[in-house]
Amino acid sequence: MAYELFYWPGIQGRGEFVRLALEEAGADYVDVARREGGMELMLAALENGTHPAFAPPFLRAGEATIGQVANILLYLGERHGLAPRSDPGRLWVHQLQLTIADLVAEIHDTHHPISTSLYYEDQKPEAQRRAADLVETRLPKFFGYFSRLLTNPEPRDWLAGDKPSYADLSLFQVVDGLRYAFPNAMKRLEGEYPALAALHARVAARPNIAAYLASPRRIPYNQNGIFRHYPELDE
Amino acid sequence: MAYELFYWPGIQGRGEFVRLALEEAGADYVDVARREGGMELMLAALENGTHPAFAPPFLRAGEATIGQVANILLYLGERHGLAPRSDPGRLWVHQLQLTIADLVAEIHDTHHPISTSLYYEDQKPEAQRRAADLVETRLPKFFGYFSRLLTNPEPRDWLAGDKPSYADLSLFQVVDGLRYAFPNAMKRLEGEYPALAALHARVAARPNIAAYLASPRRIPYNQNGIFRHYPELDE
Repeated sequence: MAYELFYWPGIQGRGEFVRLALEEAGADYVDVARREGGMELMLAALENGTHPAFAPPFLRAGEATIGQVANILLYLGERHGLAPRSDPGRLWVHQLQLTIADLVAEIHDTHHPISTSLYYEDQKPEAQRRAADLVETRLPKFFGYFSRLLTNPEPRDWLAGDKPSYADLSLFQVVDGLRYAFPNAMKRLEGEYPALAALHARVAARPNIAAYLASPRRIPYNQNGIFRHYPELDE
Repeated sequence: MAYELFYWPGIQGRGEFVRLALEEAGADYVDVARREGGMELMLAALENGTHPAFAPPFLRAGEATIGQVANILLYLGERHGLAPRSDPGRLWVHQLQLTIADLVAEIHDTHHPISTSLYYEDQKPEAQRRAADLVETRLPKFFGYFSRLLTNPEPRDWLAGDKPSYADLSLFQVVDGLRYAFPNAMKRLEGEYPALAALHARVAARPNIAAYLASPRRIPYNQNGIFRHYPELDE
């Protein structure tokens, strides 16, 4: 049975965190809305069904429909060895994922600090203030946290346990996306947190991930996703 | 063994979603930072330990330390019958909680649209734009979603299954907090979503919750929490 992933076609967006887990697991899946007629299926699924999602992405797995990125990853993590099996380990990885989700929401809001229903161009002064705060205050706080987990009390390859978890894949995506969106800021910041660049490289070198990143399945960054490059926000 | 809840003293904040679950469950717990010397214990716990949280709240349960509200509720829900036992039901309630968490973050950002490290007074014009968008666009979208779940295909008492789950308790808190923060907007909106007011009343009437709300353990709303009443944001 192939999984069916429902997400906006044309952007990596929040769907990418799910795609990376499916790809690392070598799972069979269909990216429904990127196929002809798929958008209609996705919009219909948002209106109907017993467990409708508030918004994409959501995953259909047999009879189950599961929404919210972290929840989908909780489900996939257990089934594909992308999280520790023990209860404390499972909750710890989920906690890290939820912290990454908080960071992703903050990154998104740098270009939409006022409203998701307005264009970026209609909230540019606010975006400049918010982006400056992200770079000066929030990224150092989040980077410091994850960096500490990867180095303290001793250097480790992965955030939890001795194998990559879905949280490692998501942290890769955050670093990768931030390099696209804020190249100048990241040049300044990354030197202070070498453990994050090392994790990024480690994930990128996973055979399934490397193959995915080189494939047409990986949608290029653009100005519609979460990670957008507006030079005026990255001075 | 009593649970130890670690959260900022003096506000309901995100800790309140955990408190409501502990109270409904009749669980034995200590609100650590509200005791003398508790703040020092909390700040030390954020710096040390094998699974440090990024931020409060976090819960100590025996040897485990669990952070992130939705993750704590996932843990408590399984142990105290505050979520369905079946796998699909468990994931569905968690999905709803994560959607509520998204709404809570948006509500918080009405008074801090630019930066959590600036005062509200330093981001007032932005706050007015963002609060207007919350009331006009976002609340109707979220309220419509939860309302639909409570009425479609037929009216139901609780979001999932035939017992209250932690998501019901959290939705109660959101309605309750919004009534404090945006009384005018809520007067206009609530008539359109009677299922939400009915859920609020149903949760408030639960014996353990009613006793909690009337106790000094329930911290009054104030201008430091997530739900703040600024009349200029609610015209």
